[in-house]
Amino acid sequence: MNCEIIAVGSELLTPYRQDTNSLFLTDRLLQLGVNVTFKTIVGDRLANLANAIRIALGRTDIVITMGGLGPTEDDLTRQAVAEALGIRLRRNPDIVGALYARFAARRIQMTDNNARQADVLDGSVILENGRGTAPGQWLDTVYGEHRKLVILLPGPPTEVKAMFDEQCMDRLRAVVPKRTIAMRTLKAAMIGESQADARIAPIYTKYKDVDTTILAHTGDITLNLICSKGDQETAQARVDELAGKIEEELEEFIYSAQAESLEQIVLYYLGMHASTLAVAESCTGGLVSQRLTSISGSSRSFVGGAVVYSDELKTLFAGVPPSVIEANGAVSKEVAGALAEGIRRKTSATFGLGVTGIAGPGGGSEEKPVGLVYVAVSDGKQTDVVERRFGGDREHIRAWTSQLALDLVRRRLK
Amino acid sequence: MNCEIIAVGSELLTPYRQDTNSLFLTDRLLQLGVNVTFKTIVGDRLANLANAIRIALGRTDIVITMGGLGPTEDDLTRQAVAEALGIRLRRNPDIVGALYARFAARRIQMTDNNARQADVLDGSVILENGRGTAPGQWLDTVYGEHRKLVILLPGPPTEVKAMFDEQCMDRLRAVVPKRTIAMRTLKAAMIGESQADARIAPIYTKYKDVDTTILAHTGDITLNLICSKGDQETAQARVDELAGKIEEELEEFIYSAQAESLEQIVLYYLGMHASTLAVAESCTGGLVSQRLTSISGSSRSFVGGAVVYSDELKTLFAGVPPSVIEANGAVSKEVAGALAEGIRRKTSATFGLGVTGIAGPGGGSEEKPVGLVYVAVSDGKQTDVVERRFGGDREHIRAWTSQLALDLVRRRLK
Repeated sequence: MNCEIIAVGSELLTPYRQDTNSLFLTDRLLQLGVNVTFKTIVGDRLANLANAIRIALGRTDIVITMGGLGPTEDDLTRQAVAEALGIRLRRNPDIVGALYARFAARRIQMTDNNARQADVLDGSVILENGRGTAPGQWLDTVYGEHRKLVILLPGPPTEVKAMFDEQCMDRLRAVVPKRTIAMRTLKAAMIGESQADARIAPIYTKYKDVDTTILAHTGDITLNLICSKGDQETAQARVDELAGKIEEELEEFIYSAQAESLEQIVLYYLGMHASTLAVAESCTGGLVSQRLTSISGSSRSFVGGAVVYSDELKTLFAGVPPSVIEANGAVSKEVAGALAEGIRRKTSATFGLGVTGIAGPGGGSEEKPVGLVYVAVSDGKQTDVVERRFGGDREHIRAWTSQLALDLVRRRLK
Repeated sequence: MNCEIIAVGSELLTPYRQDTNSLFLTDRLLQLGVNVTFKTIVGDRLANLANAIRIALGRTDIVITMGGLGPTEDDLTRQAVAEALGIRLRRNPDIVGALYARFAARRIQMTDNNARQADVLDGSVILENGRGTAPGQWLDTVYGEHRKLVILLPGPPTEVKAMFDEQCMDRLRAVVPKRTIAMRTLKAAMIGESQADARIAPIYTKYKDVDTTILAHTGDITLNLICSKGDQETAQARVDELAGKIEEELEEFIYSAQAESLEQIVLYYLGMHASTLAVAESCTGGLVSQRLTSISGSSRSFVGGAVVYSDELKTLFAGVPPSVIEANGAVSKEVAGALAEGIRRKTSATFGLGVTGIAGPGGGSEEKPVGLVYVAVSDGKQTDVVERRFGGDREHIRAWTSQLALDLVRRRLK
């Protein structure tokens, strides 16, 4: 079975806002073996909305709308679906009552327009909304002699997620023919997309039954392997076999075979070694620490560190001797090493990580151009320093450098 | 005139990747006064792609496709447009020659499939691609007795942007009727979307000629005002008048009337006062520093600071007396204040900023629940401390807290 997702809202046709719900829905539908073949984004105009729904009904089995279920004049999805299918809307007194009760509980006078949210398509099942006022609707119907499922969901992401997981997944499972679907996600760090592809294309192209997608994002590569051929066991075996061969080929670059993030893996390795980490970062300005502390429970292995944006702070917080900065410059392998050693010593962490570089756009020179970075890790006995030169803008250079820094710790701990 | 944007690529129908080019295109089209009325996302299947193009031709004046122009079997956009319009593709020998030359310069043997990129729609103008191999196409044609513009762009964002700005904007300006378009962007911090809307809706609803969009993102609100009625001067005056009234109503929450970010504004105020800032952050774990250092030139006003994730580091780097932590707990207004005062003293910055809180999901108690945060700013004489309780998950709490911290500095400096 296939599906079209329609995101409704004029704001989604401006430069300022984008539909993101469809990524969530696509993920869930993929789990069920439903292919999304079209996504349409349409504004709050009845004619356009009804047009989009009619077209979707003509080309897919399942049509899911998101948005346009609220109480205002602009909320036209119910009406548009009714028009497209040629069926009636009826105001449901139970929903009207529940809306009144909801407003009364908050001691707010309900305005009349709210009752529009109680208009229900003839024959549809009401999907309750635990997180907002607008209920969704589930309609199993016939259009042009074909059975069609039409699902009306609200727009806010938290409402969409809860309603879909709690009230649509089981219903869909009962309707959608059971399909084989085997997946694996591999993650790799510090290898370019084309370089990775050049190495693994000769492998994955031999697995014609497995869909391999490469997604690259500033030094972080996600490989999604999906197989929907044959029975479930065979499909999973094929995916696992291909995953194994890719892991072998990209060996040292692969950091997870289970879709974890690099931050999670670094913290996992630290925990496994009962070790702690402290960070002294200059050019990344807090980004490395921020990434580690974004993970819940990181305080068990990450003690903190310093953002040493000035030379004085490099000395004050990471004990880098001013003479080392003077002799080599703040962006140098000596200072990176001294940052790693110093922050480790000061904080008594097992490992110290030092980061220095030129993020740009200013501050570069012929000898030390924008994008030149040094990253070091030290356990007090051994200090490894890596030099790299990244292209791109400030954000790009900082993101790659934070990835390089985390990956250096991972390689040291592996 | 109106436009439909079609993003082509099966990867855009997976949970892993999303079209982002359309935000850029929507912005440029808005500047020209062209409304985007539909966006469609379709995979690499000829039938589906031709279907999407036919539908777009039937409902809009301008159809822009992105993607599907490369050399592989999956790149079907040229063919689909030819099919939808019933016109022919001809292989252009000049483009074939240029492709051979391009490959030869890199000493790579060109594979035959690359020549598909030289297939040109009858009557179309070739849009050269300075950043990739696939040229775009511009076709001024007739479909169902109506004049239609069909623009074929490549998929990679850098190629789309360069090709559109350099080769499409002027061409469109010559075709699109000149339209009034006046804009303003206001930014506000630490006010909820519904709260802001409740206060300003009575104002902006009186300006029926101005489109007001509110975009909220973890404590940061963007208000876009757009007017396309009347002549340019009147429209700009209307937008400016409304902007002025909104500024008056939301007064202390508004931090920019020119679309700057909060980070930029904080650094701007610091520069204006010839002041410097240092940060000691616990629960935000580097996020505040990372946001400030994301701005180029931030080193002039931001000296750095410490990520004090453990009690020991709060004492070591920000000089918080262990007795203060013991008596009040690490998450307390006393510790927030001591962090701000201590990091200022240690670093000799003009201002110190201290952040502590419980980001969750663990670590909360009845007395000090998840989401409780304290933020303090100090100049050595006066220390302001703010207590807030945020809802949501770890990421949400950290993002709001970083916003609160930056906004506290802004309000102090204003």
